[in-house]
Parts: sequence; structure tokens; C-alpha cells
Amino acid sequence: MKAPLFKDIVAAADRIAGVAIETPLLENPLLNEDLGARIFLKPENLQRVGAFKFRGAYNRLVQLTPEERTRGVVAFSSGNHAQGVASAAKILGIEATIVMPSDAPEMKVENTRGYGARVVLYDRATESREDIAAEIAREKGSVVVPAFEDPHIIAGQGTAALEVIRQVGERGAKLDAFLCPVGGGGLASGSGIVLNELSPETKVYGVEPQNFDDLGRSLKSGQRETNEKFSGSVCDALLSPSTGDLTFSILQQRLDGAFSVSDDEALGAVKYAWQKLKLVLEPGGATGLAALLYGKLGVRGMTVAVLLSGGNVDEETFIRALSADMR
Amino acid sequence: MKAPLFKDIVAAADRIAGVAIETPLLENPLLNEDLGARIFLKPENLQRVGAFKFRGAYNRLVQLTPEERTRGVVAFSSGNHAQGVASAAKILGIEATIVMPSDAPEMKVENTRGYGARVVLYDRATESREDIAAEIAREKGSVVVPAFEDPHIIAGQGTAALEVIRQVGERGAKLDAFLCPVGGGGLASGSGIVLNELSPETKVYGVEPQNFDDLGRSLKSGQRETNEKFSGSVCDALLSPSTGDLTFSILQQRLDGAFSVSDDEALGAVKYAWQKLKLVLEPGGATGLAALLYGKLGVRGMTVAVLLSGGNVDEETFIRALSADMR
Repeated sequence: MKAPLFKDIVAAADRIAGVAIETPLLENPLLNEDLGARIFLKPENLQRVGAFKFRGAYNRLVQLTPEERTRGVVAFSSGNHAQGVASAAKILGIEATIVMPSDAPEMKVENTRGYGARVVLYDRATESREDIAAEIAREKGSVVVPAFEDPHIIAGQGTAALEVIRQVGERGAKLDAFLCPVGGGGLASGSGIVLNELSPETKVYGVEPQNFDDLGRSLKSGQRETNEKFSGSVCDALLSPSTGDLTFSILQQRLDGAFSVSDDEALGAVKYAWQKLKLVLEPGGATGLAALLYGKLGVRGMTVAVLLSGGNVDEETFIRALSADMR
Repeated sequence: MKAPLFKDIVAAADRIAGVAIETPLLENPLLNEDLGARIFLKPENLQRVGAFKFRGAYNRLVQLTPEERTRGVVAFSSGNHAQGVASAAKILGIEATIVMPSDAPEMKVENTRGYGARVVLYDRATESREDIAAEIAREKGSVVVPAFEDPHIIAGQGTAALEVIRQVGERGAKLDAFLCPVGGGGLASGSGIVLNELSPETKVYGVEPQNFDDLGRSLKSGQRETNEKFSGSVCDALLSPSTGDLTFSILQQRLDGAFSVSDDEALGAVKYAWQKLKLVLEPGGATGLAALLYGKLGVRGMTVAVLLSGGNVDEETFIRALSADMR
């Protein structure tokens, strides 16, 4: 599989224009003051389906042939990719089947069904989602839409960074650093390609949940490492076993490093976003912000953009975050 | 006191440019689908201090003479105007004293202190905030900054609608209706002046809490009515005893009507904003949205803008909203 080129991301931006939301670039005086820096926020929680995932899913599905479209699509995901594929499929009139873990946040399962997709639940501990999806694909001849290991998906996710660069430029600023959450690495791969091309001086960092820091370890060892566990973090959106062959090869070239944040730090960032930024984030979507708030990277005096990747969170988890300690 | 002219609002926009945040205009596919309409959201919860109030406060304070600035300012407010004045005063290097009711949301009191203002608490039931503020003003010669009954405050608040009209125009749309929350009527007055001038076909509506519907009754009777109670709604930001002489005279000319929403409806809108829009709103700031969600105005097929006026809400109230019934 070949990595997408910068021009593929530009082409993806044209394809999703008018369908995906061009999310605004926000700046908050309290956050700037707290960090002694200029922080730009790219709130992809305001994207269609409440997460950046719509960008990649739509860019993939809109390129299916008419014949492929009639056979439907199948995807596996704990939630945000599920909603992205379901929503894109609905817009394009394609049948979608989504394989989701039975412990996925209820809101994500409900929303996926709400977009008209058929949801097949599986047990994370005993069943293989890849096998289930492959079986469904075989039966119907459906196209499997991977969550990150696909050049069209990566190109679609990269369009958010393309917007960031243009929006930052409109404000007459230049980025010293760019941070984004990392699960399978699709968003970070697309972002890295864009930033390396348009703003080569900008450092690009991925942020992972503690104990799910396969990327950080992989970047150090030079080979693709995996996580021991598949669940057990509040950052449900970021719990892929590892990056993919394709995404890791891109991230190795494009990223300047990776940080990891604890559950408490992710929840603290969710609370900070609620209290001061007035934005609803899910813990996984807040990891980039958490890395800034909890000093994983010194940013005093710098200009930094952070991608807030999603806001699909259950009531229970959100209420838990409101009780979290704040920085 | 004379009503501000349209050109005063344009001048206010120039004064606050680069200091106030130009909040984005948002659109959400789920909301559009739920209402069968095109709904533009103006999220003033993303404004400096988490509410539109900064606009008017800064426009007033920046016009004080150097001599007046040395004597400080005093204001009374249940919370958002307090924060607006405190923040504007801090930026301009002016001492601020804010008289707040002892039952104001804790977050609003804390934030006001956080901006460096001196906070004087009073008992809503037994003390007069006007008397306390006047006494402080007399002692120090400070300028009293009213929450709404002032042409510069009204002009400042009107700048949000000025942005809405430009942002809606950039999207090639035209507004059939505009809704905004009403307490003392400063925001609605400024909005009405702007909309009547730039988009005369647009109907302009104010939205009040149930049992605090003095404006609705005043528009019907043709004279300024007052509310019987001064507390007892979750919409703490909108509980002024009545509009002012000035704001009512403007609203009478500029508005097409007023709606009122119950506490449950306001809380339901807070929950909707959390779940689907990924925005944190306070109940008073969500009344315009509540009016749409609960069908106070039929909007099917229409293009409508709604001003989300603030997002400063206590944990307790927010958690209560998350348990509310949703539309």
C-alpha cells in the first residue's frame, strides 16, 4: 500500500468540500494565559458525527464505483469511525454494516444506528472483529472500509490539518508545534504529510493514552510495537492494538515524537474544555490538550495548534470528568 | 437617554476588534435535520468570559476618559456582565468593583474575582444592589456601568448580530428569523437595530424564561411590565426585574415578538447542545435554542439564526441538565 501524497490530501479536500464541515480555528484567552503561549484549537468535535472521522470515511466512500456502492460497505470500529462510515454511507445512499465491540460507549452505538447502519456487536476478549467483518464482506461482496490503514482514509483525515494551516495563516501566525491524538495513526499521518509540506519548521507530535503508547515505543525502537491490552483506558477512541504498517511508516518519517497522558490527565482536559473553552470533548479527543495542560511539552512563548479530535462521550464518563482534578 | 444608532454599533465593532473574539457561525446537520430547517448558531459561549457581555462592557469602558479610568468602575450583575466588566477593566488597567447576589453561581463569582475585580456580595431578598453600587460610586467617584440601560452597552452587544449578518451573507444565505435570549434586553436591542437595518425582512424574536416573561407581556400591553419574582428560574442570567426604559423603547420598535421557555425546556436545550452540538451552554444562554427545539416558533423550511448567549454554568446545574428529558 502506498502512502498518500500531499496532492491526494488536496484532492480529498475538494471531494469533501460542502459535505464535511469546515470547522473553525478557535483561540481562548484563558488557555493562552494559563500556558503563556498562543494556542490554536481545531475543534473536530464540531465536525459532522462529532469527530474528524467523517473526513476520511467520506473521501473513501465517494470514490467507490457505482457497482461497488450497490454491494454496501462494512467497517469495524469502537465508535467514531463507525459513525463516520455510517453517516457518509447514508449521504451517498450506500448500505453500511458496522462491527462494534459490545463495550463501546452506548452513545456511539446509538448514533451509528441513528445514521441508518446495521450494527453487529462482538466481544473484544473472545472474538476477532477482522474475521467478523471479513465474513460479512465475503457474503455480500461488500468493501471493507478500514479505520486508518488506507491511503484514502489518511488523505481525508489530513484535510483537517490543511484547514489549520490556512486558518493559522489568515491570522498572520506560524506554528512552532502541532499536536494531535493518535490511535491507529490515520489522523496523525495525514497531519504529518500536510505539516511537513506546508510548514516544515513545525514540530509534529502525536499523543497517546498511558499504557497504550505503542507509537511512542515504536518511534524509539524503530519497529512497530503493539499494546499489551486492548481495553482499560477512558480514551476509548484511541485503543487500537498498534498503528498499521502504512501509518507507522508515514509517522516514522513525519513525526517529531509522541507523548502519553494518563486517564486522569485526559479527564482533567475534558473538564478544562467544559469549564473554560465551553467545548464538549471525549477523553480520547482531549489528549492533545491534556499534553499541553500537563506540561508534556514546554510551550511557553510558542505558537501551537492542537487538534481536538472528537466529542462523543457518555453521560457517565462526562460526569466523572466534571469531578476530576483540574490542572 | 438616546438609543444607539446603527452607526454606533459599527463604531463599537471597530473598538472591540482584536480584543473581543469574533465568534464563528456554526451549522449542525443533526439540528438542521431535527428541525427541517437551516439553523445558524452564533456561539457567544466561545466569547471572552464565556458570554456576549464582554462586547458591551469593553465598548463602554474603552470610552472612559483617562481621568474617569483612575476612579475605577462599579457594576452590579448576577454573573456574566460582572465577568465582562471585570475582564474589560483588567485589559484596560481599570479597578473594578462588582456587586453580585450571594446566590449567584459560584463559577461566575470565582471567575469575576479571577479577572482581578473586587466582589461585594449582597442578599437579593433584603438589599438593593442599585443602592450598594451607588454608595460605592459616591465614595470613590467611580463610574457605574449598567448591564443594559446604556447606549454604549447596547451598541457593544449589537456587534454580535453585525457579525452574524456578515457570516450568513458569506454563506450565501438570508435569514427568515433571528432569536436571542432576553434578560434586561441589551443584546436584543442591539440585535434588533442591526437586523432592522441590514436585513429588514428578518423577523426578530426575544426568548425569556417562563414566569420572567416581562418583555412578552410588555409588548402585548404596550407598556413596561415587571416580573413578580426576582429569583426561582434556572436561567440565572435572564432574571432582571424588567427591561429598562431605553431597552423597552427600542425593543417595542424593533422586535416581532417574544417567546418564553420553561426551566425543563432550557435544561433540555443545554443537554441537546452537549450531546449533539458539542457546546457547553448555560440554561439562560440556551433559551433561544430551546424555543426552536420545543416548537415555540414553526421554522420548517426556514433559515434561522439563534444566538447562544453564554456558557457559564455550575457543575451541579450541568449535571442536572444531563439528566433532563431531551426533545
